[in-house]
Amino acid sequence: MSKLSALDLNKIETPFYIYDSEELSQRATQVKTVFEGLLAPSYAIKSNPNLQVLRSVMSQLDHIDASSAMEVERALAIGLDPSQITWSGPGKRDRELRAYAGLGLTIVVESSDEIDMLDAICAEKGIQQDVLLRINPDHVPKGFGASMSGKPSQFGIDEPEVPAVIADIDARASLRLTGFHAYTGSMCLAPEPIAENIENLCAIFSRAAECASTPPEKLIFGAGFGIPLHDGQVPLDIEQVRTLIAPHIEALAQDPRLGAATRLLELGRWISGPSGALVTRVLSAKVSRGLPIAVCDAGFNNHLAACGMMGSVFQKNYPFEVLQHQGDPAPVEQMLAGPLCTSIDQLSRKITLPLLAKGDVLAVLMSGAYGLTASPTRFISHPEPTEYMIEDGTLRDISESALNHPGTIRST
Amino acid sequence: MSKLSALDLNKIETPFYIYDSEELSQRATQVKTVFEGLLAPSYAIKSNPNLQVLRSVMSQLDHIDASSAMEVERALAIGLDPSQITWSGPGKRDRELRAYAGLGLTIVVESSDEIDMLDAICAEKGIQQDVLLRINPDHVPKGFGASMSGKPSQFGIDEPEVPAVIADIDARASLRLTGFHAYTGSMCLAPEPIAENIENLCAIFSRAAECASTPPEKLIFGAGFGIPLHDGQVPLDIEQVRTLIAPHIEALAQDPRLGAATRLLELGRWISGPSGALVTRVLSAKVSRGLPIAVCDAGFNNHLAACGMMGSVFQKNYPFEVLQHQGDPAPVEQMLAGPLCTSIDQLSRKITLPLLAKGDVLAVLMSGAYGLTASPTRFISHPEPTEYMIEDGTLRDISESALNHPGTIRST
Repeated sequence: MSKLSALDLNKIETPFYIYDSEELSQRATQVKTVFEGLLAPSYAIKSNPNLQVLRSVMSQLDHIDASSAMEVERALAIGLDPSQITWSGPGKRDRELRAYAGLGLTIVVESSDEIDMLDAICAEKGIQQDVLLRINPDHVPKGFGASMSGKPSQFGIDEPEVPAVIADIDARASLRLTGFHAYTGSMCLAPEPIAENIENLCAIFSRAAECASTPPEKLIFGAGFGIPLHDGQVPLDIEQVRTLIAPHIEALAQDPRLGAATRLLELGRWISGPSGALVTRVLSAKVSRGLPIAVCDAGFNNHLAACGMMGSVFQKNYPFEVLQHQGDPAPVEQMLAGPLCTSIDQLSRKITLPLLAKGDVLAVLMSGAYGLTASPTRFISHPEPTEYMIEDGTLRDISESALNHPGTIRST
Repeated sequence: MSKLSALDLNKIETPFYIYDSEELSQRATQVKTVFEGLLAPSYAIKSNPNLQVLRSVMSQLDHIDASSAMEVERALAIGLDPSQITWSGPGKRDRELRAYAGLGLTIVVESSDEIDMLDAICAEKGIQQDVLLRINPDHVPKGFGASMSGKPSQFGIDEPEVPAVIADIDARASLRLTGFHAYTGSMCLAPEPIAENIENLCAIFSRAAECASTPPEKLIFGAGFGIPLHDGQVPLDIEQVRTLIAPHIEALAQDPRLGAATRLLELGRWISGPSGALVTRVLSAKVSRGLPIAVCDAGFNNHLAACGMMGSVFQKNYPFEVLQHQGDPAPVEQMLAGPLCTSIDQLSRKITLPLLAKGDVLAVLMSGAYGLTASPTRFISHPEPTEYMIEDGTLRDISESALNHPGTIRST
């Protein structure tokens, strides 16, 4: 978000989210280019589902991952072909499966209950549906960020049960097993564990393919690519990831059972996170028991993750940039509070910045992912932040405001 | 929520929130009756701002606390008189103060910046505005739940600075200091620390009154009344609280400077929490690495607090009630996951309940406060829960759905 300094902050009401269309496209292109020939990126809608964000990202990519029925609808709403969409998620409803089965998208099945449900729907409709089986690996590499594997999990099928579940799917006339999916963790910044994870998934997919009656057509590797959010973190070296994984992916491509499969790298935050920011204004400032406090017009109602309430045990500061400041530039330790009547509403408990005063404006950087839609915007009924896109040098209001969902579920 | 068992769960789409109008009114009446002659309850809208919930609660009460401009608008929308409304909160905007100054409500000022801002607006409008000064006490009693005092805080004025700030307000022609406000903590279940806190606030208000040029007309005591949410917790004995605080309040009433003041007890959760539940259905069930897992159609997108993401470091189980169950009633340890594609989406990491299966329905009890509006309902675009009210034996859809706010700010 290098373009924040060009904004005329006196003309834009805060708080607002802002995304850079060019940067979204550029990051999508970058990851596509770096992994060319090995893995094709598939954008995880959940990281930022705004329709204009999807358009910017998907102008460069061929694949998208939806984690709910309404995310499928979002992908269709921007004109994607169902064949580009993979629909995963542990909690699919009967009526949702009924609506989307047979449309041509790939459905990731995550439990035997879901297999039964989808099979019954497809049998009733007289159709055959392509499915991927989500596998929950027994092991994840050390240092692989927030791990989702190796422990009881709502996601997919535990690795030891995979052969039996494959046989079960293969025996059902209404389902066609076309491949495998695994997403084992997130927020990793080290190339080695990421590469080790992909190597492990190659082996898991190979073993699974041996159990299946036909060769896989699609393999989805959960990337786990992190972005630097906190002090001392450095961006993930994705070129290094490519170098490390190349031999394993190339070996997979030589495997006669797996060579023809489309290989996808599922990622969201890495693309959308750095391309967005939340901009907030200081409503009042005070000193309480020796600590300067700036009360901002955005709090956890607008950015749950920055307030340390999105899965982190202890809050660590997001990166902040002061965009407008009138006082002494000398940095001092201060608190950044939000506007809510609750003591947990703190964008930062302690941060060293120039002393903020009423009217000053600052940005929470790295907020293009898991920002607005991941926050309880209605809490205490403060104004909903606008969403803006910088595109071709102009600022466009791309808020979906009250419109949570771009369409209703089609009844087929 | 004793009426959950009477619901025809096959006819109501899950997830949904349900509130009991009679119980809301009854709890409001109970707290009003118990503290009659000592303190009059003032309902904190933020705990549950649904307009129909407000109507049920306010059918019994005379006072309401708004924590944002849009909460003021909600109070006005149900027909309350401005004189019944107190508006507090550390993050008031200039345009909001401009809109509501002079309307007849009481504004709680929380910082010198806010005093300056409101004074300038009132001077410009040629009006005088009643204000309460929020005081941030130096000490809170031991065992007083989630404490908001005695440390750097965005709320109000630190106790040692109160005399100077009172003098400042008294010197301004456009502001009229009509009393004091303090809210020092929440979620306390023990009568003694609650009473000790109220005793302390009596002393603080007395000292503050000595500094003011005119006797206070309104004193607001932040209650901190908790409700039992977790195993082993018992309801707060509010009769005992009355007994303990009576001598202190009666002494205050004898004080010539404070005797004429209206004394309010600000509380929200205690009234609305037990009167509501979130009802969710099991979409699929599985066993992963030995642990049974029920994937529910509600997760932290619908109930952030129950998932332990609302200020708690470690998740503790909310109380659950199984409403519809077809299998073996023997209790077993299991996980309750939500529908989201993130491993932190767990209504319970481990809970002992009859083994749940697809189609079973359960309720998260004690969810009438800090439920729907305190949750990121748009996250991963799952369907928005409906809100229902049980009233006179019938079930009414009281969802505000996309309508976040009942009105726009009036321009005066």
